[in-house]
Amino acid sequence: MTDRVFNFSPGPATLPYEVLQQAGKDVVNFKNTGIGLIESSHRSKEFMAVADQAESSLRKLMHIPDNYKVLFLQGGASSQFFMVPMNLLGGTKNATYLNTGTWSKKAIKEAHLFGNISVPFSSEEDTFNRVPKQEEYTVADNSEYLYFVSNNTIYGTQFHDIPQTKTLLVSDMSSDILSRSIDVSKFGIIFAGAQKNLGPAGVTLVIIRDDLLARTPDNTPTMLSYKTHADKGSMFNTPPCFAIYVVGEVLKWLLGQGGVEAIEIKNREKATLLYAAIDSSDYYKGHAEKESRSFMNIPFTLPTKELEAQFIAEAAASGLKGLKGHRSIGGCRASIYNAFPKEGVEKLVLFMKEFEKQNPVD
Amino acid sequence: MTDRVFNFSPGPATLPYEVLQQAGKDVVNFKNTGIGLIESSHRSKEFMAVADQAESSLRKLMHIPDNYKVLFLQGGASSQFFMVPMNLLGGTKNATYLNTGTWSKKAIKEAHLFGNISVPFSSEEDTFNRVPKQEEYTVADNSEYLYFVSNNTIYGTQFHDIPQTKTLLVSDMSSDILSRSIDVSKFGIIFAGAQKNLGPAGVTLVIIRDDLLARTPDNTPTMLSYKTHADKGSMFNTPPCFAIYVVGEVLKWLLGQGGVEAIEIKNREKATLLYAAIDSSDYYKGHAEKESRSFMNIPFTLPTKELEAQFIAEAAASGLKGLKGHRSIGGCRASIYNAFPKEGVEKLVLFMKEFEKQNPVD
Repeated sequence: MTDRVFNFSPGPATLPYEVLQQAGKDVVNFKNTGIGLIESSHRSKEFMAVADQAESSLRKLMHIPDNYKVLFLQGGASSQFFMVPMNLLGGTKNATYLNTGTWSKKAIKEAHLFGNISVPFSSEEDTFNRVPKQEEYTVADNSEYLYFVSNNTIYGTQFHDIPQTKTLLVSDMSSDILSRSIDVSKFGIIFAGAQKNLGPAGVTLVIIRDDLLARTPDNTPTMLSYKTHADKGSMFNTPPCFAIYVVGEVLKWLLGQGGVEAIEIKNREKATLLYAAIDSSDYYKGHAEKESRSFMNIPFTLPTKELEAQFIAEAAASGLKGLKGHRSIGGCRASIYNAFPKEGVEKLVLFMKEFEKQNPVD
Repeated sequence: MTDRVFNFSPGPATLPYEVLQQAGKDVVNFKNTGIGLIESSHRSKEFMAVADQAESSLRKLMHIPDNYKVLFLQGGASSQFFMVPMNLLGGTKNATYLNTGTWSKKAIKEAHLFGNISVPFSSEEDTFNRVPKQEEYTVADNSEYLYFVSNNTIYGTQFHDIPQTKTLLVSDMSSDILSRSIDVSKFGIIFAGAQKNLGPAGVTLVIIRDDLLARTPDNTPTMLSYKTHADKGSMFNTPPCFAIYVVGEVLKWLLGQGGVEAIEIKNREKATLLYAAIDSSDYYKGHAEKESRSFMNIPFTLPTKELEAQFIAEAAASGLKGLKGHRSIGGCRASIYNAFPKEGVEKLVLFMKEFEKQNPVD
């Protein structure tokens, strides 16, 4: 493990090292079957057990009520941007979206193809530096759902309070699922691309309340109906077996860590450490407003673009990789999901202090 | 490698052992970056090189002309069943489909949602035991394309001659891509789920002639337009990185084997061995008519269902696994894709002869 670096990548992102080691073995010879995991039929008893375990671990970790289905789909969260309104709006119904970043904006674009969309809040003019307070928007009574992105990977903002509304909630939790306790029963649909807190790219988790499965219009392509996948336990067609397997291993690891409640405390400690370093200096500046700060993605700037480039390069040389900010806002960004170790944050904080000392501005 | 068995699974299926071993290492620490392959950003230079190499190897192996795009998508071949007509028919145009098995039937069902579909040939009444001869169907002049499944995994049939028509060809080559030489320039779209000849489940290859990218209706969801993915080199959103990586390794392996032309000879040898064993006995019977026989999937029956169950169980105990036929036709099936070793076929043939001797019927 001596050659392992700290990887601040926003996704695909750091996974638990023991999961990688187990996956490395299983890819070659899965459970001593003499067949590699990625050669194994998805209908084999060995793989069926993998998929069942992944689902039951998730149900346990998130306390998912029995009237919710857990689906493992393909196409990324980006495919959910159109699948949600395609399945729920039928071309004519209404929905409300909160526009708090790149991913909500893309979801709004797709939703317009399938219904009447209201956007009562947008922080776009302030470079998406915050999420709304409850009193800043209203949800019309005829809305089928209120859609929000719980954590904004690029801008480093996060809803710390789930919106209070009588309307069904739909949430893209790609970048903070399983990082904190949430009450699933408040939601109609929760979805998340795997490649942050769940596992590798290539599988998308969808948690859907089962009464919603009946809403899909008849002329929907079979593969785009949630019901197709719910009825077949996500095995209507060949699922992304390897990605589901890794998700299962990550969930086992998380159970071993004490579950969501325990990791939430660790996540808070890690983020607090880094925000304290930013706040204690005039050299580093966070992007998000304090009340909206994300515990997962922390974008920050240095006094100049040149210093930022130097910072990113020197950090990488010190074993702190992936700190470059997203191209849409530039600067630096530290993504510190569940599996990112606290020692990496401590090392970054020390590096920041030392860098500031070595590279003062007048 | 002593514990490795012969895996006749129809997909996910046997992959080259050296690819599995390399993947097992790279999952943990990719190219000595100190970051596992599945933790690596899809925008990292290391992963971009992987995706570029996979595409260029494929172009070399299939002699793909420059006016074709190569896409790595998600959702399986099943998603292409609707994406093809959604992108090409615009709700009103015509297309012709040949119905030669479960997968063509499913594709026809989806196509009806997007255009006027003609089906001038179906072998369904004969349990899909053959593909048509050229003179058995005509393609109307107003058809946008002729759709056919080049190899039928379940029923073990294969088109040995590509349909001759002035119409654009669209083909699902999921189960025989790269197993034999084809002239890509005859096709508008070729697609294939990876989990047979290409790699693990979770990525779908689409090869599309670039003038077709302009045909997509404006109201198509962003993720469902081929143009979206063509414009961004399959990186509009996070791609299924691991699956693409393994495909790249399999393609490297295939180049090392001498390419498609060389593997085609080996595939023919393997299939010929097994068909000879079936034909030399009254005990085993093949499902497909001789002229339509697949070189990839060979379904066969024994005198009774009881003997089939015993055969499958004893074969598995001898290290010949995955021989159970598809639930829709029962019996046995040997899937012998590119990476399946000839020694496995030889061992199966010996096992068949011995089984027949030990379990005679009156």
